Amino acid sequence: MDGTAKAIGQVTYTPIGVIRSEHRAADQTPIQPAYARGCPGRVELRAEYIEGLKDLDGFSHLILLYHFHQAGEPRLTVVPFTDDAPRGVFSTRHPRRPNPIGLSVVRLVRIEGSILHLEDVDILDGTPLLDIKPYFASTYDGDEIRTGWMESRRESQHAAH
Amino acid sequence: MDGTAKAIGQVTYTPIGVIRSEHRAADQTPIQPAYARGCPGRVELRAEYIEGLKDLDGFSHLILLYHFHQAGEPRLTVVPFTDDAPRGVFSTRHPRRPNPIGLSVVRLVRIEGSILHLEDVDILDGTPLLDIKPYFASTYDGDEIRTGWMESRRESQHAAH
Repeated sequence: MDGTAKAIGQVTYTPIGVIRSEHRAADQTPIQPAYARGCPGRVELRAEYIEGLKDLDGFSHLILLYHFHQAGEPRLTVVPFTDDAPRGVFSTRHPRRPNPIGLSVVRLVRIEGSILHLEDVDILDGTPLLDIKPYFASTYDGDEIRTGWMESRRESQHAAH
Repeated sequence: MDGTAKAIGQVTYTPIGVIRSEHRAADQTPIQPAYARGCPGRVELRAEYIEGLKDLDGFSHLILLYHFHQAGEPRLTVVPFTDDAPRGVFSTRHPRRPNPIGLSVVRLVRIEGSILHLEDVDILDGTPLLDIKPYFASTYDGDEIRTGWMESRRESQHAAH
């Protein structure tokens, strides 16, 4: 039943490769690209998927979807790394989610065969990769974007600087 | 082994809810939010996850990750809906991916219990929902973003208008 949903049943995915980075410890891994600027890393894609990389070298940035393999048990309320108040997990990017899927936007440096050389990698070394998507600017660029609890956090960060 | 990766084995996720929309036919469903502006829809979250919605109402936009349940067999080369040339699947958002995970940014209108009322929904009715994440502007805003084959497509669209 690979990749098939049974009503509200389960879906099963097979990692397409692995993410390599300098981040070896979960509690020291940047949890936002803002803190990972310049951090090198790479995707080691399984050779059988190389054909799917065609045309990708024209993109400067990629979205990686991956499995938080060291997330631990899910929690519905979490304390974000960048905050000190408990928040509903769906209002955060915290790894301890019901389905521990991570999302990062990274910079594509170059592709060599099945290896994607990256920068700005905020992902733990050895993380199983689920998907690669092209990144493009949101159609919401220019709209007002409200970011709830993150806004007060940013304001207090600004105030502290 | 829910949510656990075995080496390069498999990961298994349980949908946290279902996405409802006006899009009933896969071949007529908008594949980019740009074409879905104003389309209403909703998330019906499983009641057991309501606690995880706390603080989410402060966000104007959400990222939904979902399972492309009508994608069909994966292909490594696809012809994007908005293009007429074959492209490597990882350089597109096409549903026929090795792991058919979809990503949409939608507008949050309001939350009523376990129901999230949305706008700009470009997702097929009945789609199993895997995750909800807060949307915030990329740290790359203001950087040069290259989007490969999509750029020539946009130029030709501009030229046609």
